[in-house]
Amino acid sequence: MHELAERIHYKDERALARAISYVENDHPDKLKLLTDIHSLQKKAHFIGLTGSPGAGKSSLVNRLITHLRKQQLTVGVVAVDPTSPFSGGAILGDRVRMSGHFTDSGVFIRSMGTRGSLGGLARTTKETVRLMDAYGFDVILIETVGVGQSELDIMKIADTIAVVLNPGSGDVVQVFKAGIMEIADLFVINKADLPGVPKLMGELHSMLDLVKHDAPYRPPIVKTISVQNKGLDELWDRLKEHRHYLERSGEGESRRLRSLEHEVIEVVHHELMKEVWEQEERNGFPWLREVQAGEMDPYTAAQTILNRWRKNLIGKEG
Amino acid sequence: MHELAERIHYKDERALARAISYVENDHPDKLKLLTDIHSLQKKAHFIGLTGSPGAGKSSLVNRLITHLRKQQLTVGVVAVDPTSPFSGGAILGDRVRMSGHFTDSGVFIRSMGTRGSLGGLARTTKETVRLMDAYGFDVILIETVGVGQSELDIMKIADTIAVVLNPGSGDVVQVFKAGIMEIADLFVINKADLPGVPKLMGELHSMLDLVKHDAPYRPPIVKTISVQNKGLDELWDRLKEHRHYLERSGEGESRRLRSLEHEVIEVVHHELMKEVWEQEERNGFPWLREVQAGEMDPYTAAQTILNRWRKNLIGKEG
Repeated sequence: MHELAERIHYKDERALARAISYVENDHPDKLKLLTDIHSLQKKAHFIGLTGSPGAGKSSLVNRLITHLRKQQLTVGVVAVDPTSPFSGGAILGDRVRMSGHFTDSGVFIRSMGTRGSLGGLARTTKETVRLMDAYGFDVILIETVGVGQSELDIMKIADTIAVVLNPGSGDVVQVFKAGIMEIADLFVINKADLPGVPKLMGELHSMLDLVKHDAPYRPPIVKTISVQNKGLDELWDRLKEHRHYLERSGEGESRRLRSLEHEVIEVVHHELMKEVWEQEERNGFPWLREVQAGEMDPYTAAQTILNRWRKNLIGKEG
Repeated sequence: MHELAERIHYKDERALARAISYVENDHPDKLKLLTDIHSLQKKAHFIGLTGSPGAGKSSLVNRLITHLRKQQLTVGVVAVDPTSPFSGGAILGDRVRMSGHFTDSGVFIRSMGTRGSLGGLARTTKETVRLMDAYGFDVILIETVGVGQSELDIMKIADTIAVVLNPGSGDVVQVFKAGIMEIADLFVINKADLPGVPKLMGELHSMLDLVKHDAPYRPPIVKTISVQNKGLDELWDRLKEHRHYLERSGEGESRRLRSLEHEVIEVVHHELMKEVWEQEERNGFPWLREVQAGEMDPYTAAQTILNRWRKNLIGKEG
């Protein structure tokens, strides 16, 4: 077993942090490490929180952490929202508000960079969630902004997907259009002291009637005012109920399997691409000058690279 | 030359539509077609418009089309915003407002699906823009929602990136956090009849002082009220000025080269992955049962697939 896997198993927080860096930096030992921690995973409750920038997701996550800690539950947080104060992009001191949790050993917060290569964000986020699960947090919160393909893809690892909305924001139509309605397990009306709550409730129920009218599970709607700590109890109850539903119905197991299948695909993609680009780097990108000089189109360049790679592979073995 | 390439060259709109379908459906002739249209490209002005859902991008695009048509300019539009009435996701009849342009042969609108595979959206969008350029539109507008990695990546094909904001929305901080500030060439304050314009102007200038203080080009700020057709003249003037700047400074050429390099990478990725998954499909995904039964972890499964692929490749040639 990889040394870091063993240390993670014995709840060494520094080992967890280093393992996440392995994932982010594509360390040569990464696959070995992920293989070794696979059986260590404890199937924590993975909760995804998504919603527009400004919906108050971060504040809600902050209060939810406090709520869970009062019940002696440990919490891992992965923030993949470029607008989140948890993530590196915070510029206005929001981050300070979160700092209370940083000294609590029952809470582990990690923000994921958002400017990596295409598809990289979803992969590293999911691998980070797996590492946190192997470490043994009771609940793992994944915060993302609710628009974009990578973000939808990230959510596929969650057991429960909570969509955070605000009254009077016109969010429902956006949520519907962006394909989030179909994957939502729970709606949170945050800032529920603002006007427009009954209208938003009505819209949500209409949409649910449309999308989930014959579904075995109907997503509940919870009202919160996170800055006043209101509604957190009910939110946590509903999240737990969804977990029970997943267990009871077998839906949880099939979600986890789909998620594992996705990971197989992502790892294959990533490993192959790494090999190809390392080859081109060693060769000094010979097609680049020709493309730049307008002497070669990008599609011919791509074919050249693919042919060289196939040839090298055969040469190595032959 | 591929038959469709030739027909696109002679401005056959149905051939363009079919070629875009080739790109979206990954037709076997796709690479041949893209190679053939490469030299036909006319270097239209590629304009990206991005901004939060609800900022009024679609309305602005709509009015801009009308404005350009009055000057006898032809316009191609690619909508990759899942919340846009141009795209398939529209549910509330917004689309009807656009329908005026559908009967105009000088306007060609195509919306891109947003639920494809990871990275697929950026690739197919850029290839669609290239096809439209080969057809010969004077201006090509690319509308995306301003959050998410794929969306940032799509924008890399644009010559000019316009960011659409609203007064009183708090958008500036979001734009800054999401990494859009660095790539913006022009800001549009749309709905400029709402209160808060001077504050927004001030915030934008502060941000620009910070990010672009020693840049050779400072993004201008244009005020529009698109529903009243106000500010369109100035917007188009500023867009043209940016194009002139790109040409004068050589920056345009280097952007186009970077974009071509990205396309080489994307094509290599896509073609390799297609081969691997076609192989697995032929084999009936033998690892799937083991992963599902918990007998194999996803990382070992990935290694198995990679090893089989390498072996098959060598076997074929040897």
